[in-house]
Amino acid sequence: MKGPRIKPQVLKGFRDYPPEQMAARLAMMRTASEVFESFGFLPLETPVIEYSEVLLGKYGEEGEKQFYRFPDHGGRDVCLRFDLTVPLARYVAMNRDLPRPFKRYQMGTVFRGEHPKKGRFREFVQCDVDIVGTRSLTADAECIAVGTTLLTRVGVPEHVIRVNHRGILNALFHTVGIDDMGQVTRTFRTLDKLEKVGEDEVRRALADEVGLSATATDRVFGLLSIRGPHADVLAKLREFFENEAENLGGVTALEELLSHLRAFGVPPERVEVDLGIARGIDYYTGVVYETALSGRPEFGSIMSGGRYDHLIELMAGEEIPAVGISMGLDRLVAALVESGAILGTGNPTRVLVVAFGSAGFPAAQAIAGRVRAAGINAEVSHEIQKVGAQFKYADRKGIPYVLTEGDDERARGVVKLKDLKAQSERETTLPEAIAALQS
Amino acid sequence: MKGPRIKPQVLKGFRDYPPEQMAARLAMMRTASEVFESFGFLPLETPVIEYSEVLLGKYGEEGEKQFYRFPDHGGRDVCLRFDLTVPLARYVAMNRDLPRPFKRYQMGTVFRGEHPKKGRFREFVQCDVDIVGTRSLTADAECIAVGTTLLTRVGVPEHVIRVNHRGILNALFHTVGIDDMGQVTRTFRTLDKLEKVGEDEVRRALADEVGLSATATDRVFGLLSIRGPHADVLAKLREFFENEAENLGGVTALEELLSHLRAFGVPPERVEVDLGIARGIDYYTGVVYETALSGRPEFGSIMSGGRYDHLIELMAGEEIPAVGISMGLDRLVAALVESGAILGTGNPTRVLVVAFGSAGFPAAQAIAGRVRAAGINAEVSHEIQKVGAQFKYADRKGIPYVLTEGDDERARGVVKLKDLKAQSERETTLPEAIAALQS
Repeated sequence: MKGPRIKPQVLKGFRDYPPEQMAARLAMMRTASEVFESFGFLPLETPVIEYSEVLLGKYGEEGEKQFYRFPDHGGRDVCLRFDLTVPLARYVAMNRDLPRPFKRYQMGTVFRGEHPKKGRFREFVQCDVDIVGTRSLTADAECIAVGTTLLTRVGVPEHVIRVNHRGILNALFHTVGIDDMGQVTRTFRTLDKLEKVGEDEVRRALADEVGLSATATDRVFGLLSIRGPHADVLAKLREFFENEAENLGGVTALEELLSHLRAFGVPPERVEVDLGIARGIDYYTGVVYETALSGRPEFGSIMSGGRYDHLIELMAGEEIPAVGISMGLDRLVAALVESGAILGTGNPTRVLVVAFGSAGFPAAQAIAGRVRAAGINAEVSHEIQKVGAQFKYADRKGIPYVLTEGDDERARGVVKLKDLKAQSERETTLPEAIAALQS
Repeated sequence: MKGPRIKPQVLKGFRDYPPEQMAARLAMMRTASEVFESFGFLPLETPVIEYSEVLLGKYGEEGEKQFYRFPDHGGRDVCLRFDLTVPLARYVAMNRDLPRPFKRYQMGTVFRGEHPKKGRFREFVQCDVDIVGTRSLTADAECIAVGTTLLTRVGVPEHVIRVNHRGILNALFHTVGIDDMGQVTRTFRTLDKLEKVGEDEVRRALADEVGLSATATDRVFGLLSIRGPHADVLAKLREFFENEAENLGGVTALEELLSHLRAFGVPPERVEVDLGIARGIDYYTGVVYETALSGRPEFGSIMSGGRYDHLIELMAGEEIPAVGISMGLDRLVAALVESGAILGTGNPTRVLVVAFGSAGFPAAQAIAGRVRAAGINAEVSHEIQKVGAQFKYADRKGIPYVLTEGDDERARGVVKLKDLKAQSERETTLPEAIAALQS
């Protein structure tokens, strides 16, 4: 195996996660799966690659431009998954006898060939919970409650869930006489960029690209200006729609959602009705939500989702309503590191057992084996010839303790336990050393 | 979002893992990471996609045929990863100031476009540990020891590690005057198929495809016939090479490895010297190993690896020796399910709290919240209008207990805890019910 030297590089838009970052990610995923299971969600895993046909037509034109799409070994047209929601829809459509509501969680890598920019990567991990097979708004509330429970558990209580209902904008369109669903969808996609590009640009795009009238655009911005405490917003929305029952479906649903969120114990101050939340993805049909960290808009939405009652139907042929929420693992970890809620975790190895040459290696491994059996992470260096190098290794790797048993100690039935940070050393028995390392 | 109905199907050669299979996989991965960390290995994650240049020329021709290779959005030539070893080599070559030996573990999906057949899939999870930056055979022994520790921990004590050293076959070639490294590599690849295609076919391939003389082929099969207890095999190997020191490097290394394995407490009966183990992948240079389940050859090798002292050099420009072992998660889980060591795990939800209509939903969620806070997985059904449907849901999902608090119970400060399997019910206080569910 020879050849010219190859330059080692990570693919543009991708990244490695070194050990010091992995510790936080793994801990977060472990906590997430505990929280998800505590609410009765079950784990599922689907392939990273799907038939393109399964994914096409679900994310809008801009989403599809970001697909990693290629022919497989049998010439099949395939894509890397773009999210975990459409694969779930495919799974449910293939497994029609699942007991419903089917509550599943999935944590996995998704791929989006976005234009690379600071802090955005083309591969990232999503942690999703979804409830399939019920129209009950208690399910929408539960997805949000799971998310806030997780955020609170991991130390991000300072977040705000911004909720909206697509039915509200649909009703507005109805009141101005627009029934073209394409226009509605394009409006949602345009509004999704409001925060990024500002009102002027959105007004221009609504006129030039979506083809909305000035009246309709004004009505849209009139709607967006409705803000405040929940009761006020609901009252103003009723007024906006002149209390006409046929236009109030979305408003009533929002009201019911807010009531269920209180039942789940979600503090009302964590929930804000934001009529500008559109979610750019095509498949949403009802409640939609995003989550901002209080005072930290630069992290974007760390958790978002909504109801998609017609997505599964595309593959199942019958309507199977569903709702879900998706957390961005790495945005969340980045936010936690920033806020100081996660400190750089040290090396998980607690103790290095010194080996005195090849002859001493078996004795050192025997001690390490006993230490490990007590649930303590322990290693023996592979530099068995040089004791000094072993101490240096422990020091460089941040291993806090070193255990030695020289001939003299062995004869007296003791070991030496050295605390590298305190630079203190004491003689003790091995069981006592193990007890000390456990504490 | 509309269109013709799409047939929901999972891509050929791929599969979904439904919840009942995921429980075992997640438990296995959790145990694996505990065992890996107990020996001082640190977690690393690398991208699923790499530059093709990084992967090419490492796995031999047959491996490369299985690459998922395509252009990315910037027209870069990229591949899905084929294993976790070459990405590690790339990482180490890019991060030259890592404290060495660098001991890392990684668990992740790899992709191989093999011809699909029963039980073989094109996407599977590997769990790898590797030690980078030392030539010490204690590192080779540690990789094997980590593997046997994990297998024993998860309930597969009945396994045999078959070890070999590539230096032995190299020495044999030297004794018959073959110095063409291409021939050596092709011989390794051909021998790798011995178990699958049999001796006659391998003899034919060695003659016709590799171009070995009849004498050389006979010597190869003479070597392969050396079997038995460790001491006997080592003695016979010395005899086979007529005790010429220049040909005994591999034999001496094997002897040292066996001695280190004893130091790690690996039972000698778990280790067999098998001179037919070649490993088809090009990058191995020294010790190589595979692991069979005793009496279950149909599961193939569930854990394999070896030393690769020149792989990292291709990208780093300096020799950085390394050794590793890779476990196939799904083969291992399949073996455990087969052996009965893993039983089909039930639903992780322990209790369903009944909601009496919308009015009763907040009270039910309040109870569920208290149950969850005690560390017990609890859910409330979304069918809040029908109590009968809620019991049916618990039954179909295999949730073992149902907790109810009707108006009458609430007035008396009690709840009803029903055991669905025993079909028994009792009245108790909520704290007592929680204590009962915890046990």
